Amino acid sequence: MKKLEEYVRCIPDFPEPGIMFRDVTTILEDPDGYRLSIDSLAELLKDVDFDVVVGCEARGFFFGGALAYNLHKSLVPARKKGKLPCETVEVTYDLEYGSATIELHKDSIKPGQKVIVVDDLLATGGTAEATCRLVEALGGEVVKVVFVMELKGLNGREKLGKYDVASVIAYEGK
Amino acid sequence: MKKLEEYVRCIPDFPEPGIMFRDVTTILEDPDGYRLSIDSLAELLKDVDFDVVVGCEARGFFFGGALAYNLHKSLVPARKKGKLPCETVEVTYDLEYGSATIELHKDSIKPGQKVIVVDDLLATGGTAEATCRLVEALGGEVVKVVFVMELKGLNGREKLGKYDVASVIAYEGK
Repeated sequence: MKKLEEYVRCIPDFPEPGIMFRDVTTILEDPDGYRLSIDSLAELLKDVDFDVVVGCEARGFFFGGALAYNLHKSLVPARKKGKLPCETVEVTYDLEYGSATIELHKDSIKPGQKVIVVDDLLATGGTAEATCRLVEALGGEVVKVVFVMELKGLNGREKLGKYDVASVIAYEGK
Repeated sequence: MKKLEEYVRCIPDFPEPGIMFRDVTTILEDPDGYRLSIDSLAELLKDVDFDVVVGCEARGFFFGGALAYNLHKSLVPARKKGKLPCETVEVTYDLEYGSATIELHKDSIKPGQKVIVVDDLLATGGTAEATCRLVEALGGEVVKVVFVMELKGLNGREKLGKYDVASVIAYEGK
């Protein structure tokens, strides 16, 4: 059987020279690849008791959605500022250049709910860590943070140090 | 059993006075609501032979993803300009104020593939129609366009006149 990393397209020098971009659209576009990605994430969660899947905009939705559907959990989108129509909590975090703001609906997570956070890629960990903080601001408990891919050289796990983190594919380097 | 419309949150005067915004996050956040939405879309497609699900950024990803996973089809994201890392085709279309550009990866759809397009809401039909044009530019055949919700008063079906269109929930008015 093909391994999940064989479905990932690697694009050198994107978005800038020296960066190897890991493209997940080639996972999604192959029905077997997509199935394998979701089933691999589900495998990482097989001993975890949780109620809610929070997916990070936008690539986290591809994986968080099918995962929540398949495991019969709640799907909560963590969205970029201005996209959610009701009252939200928000957090602004630093990017390499500039900053970003993400939001959750205030009523999307109930106090005490057990939450997993899903995104496609663990790079520096900024988005995931900000998402975890929002979950906690609403009284949720982050029981695991899962990724399809991880770039170990960027030390995202350090930023996520207090959480249980797992990824399906771990790349050495950046 | 609860009907899908009972999971939709209606927000008056958002994003501007006189508009009733239909919020799908309350579908997603209820495991039974999310399951019902996907199963209802699958029901609309039960007699349709297709290879590819194209989901429109971003809310179309919630529904297109779980649908593609569940039916073991290819998921192709139609994304806002600048988000896809490889060579793309793009189309710019008019919005009520201004315009928007969406893209597909050039190699995401093979000539002759049968494609369904999925989004959360049929309003004026601009996004869906532009997406269909991109699919056709790549040689794909749009065999059906499906929505979770439709606002009949905005005549989106007219713009999508040449396609087979279906929605789970049809609201009278705008």
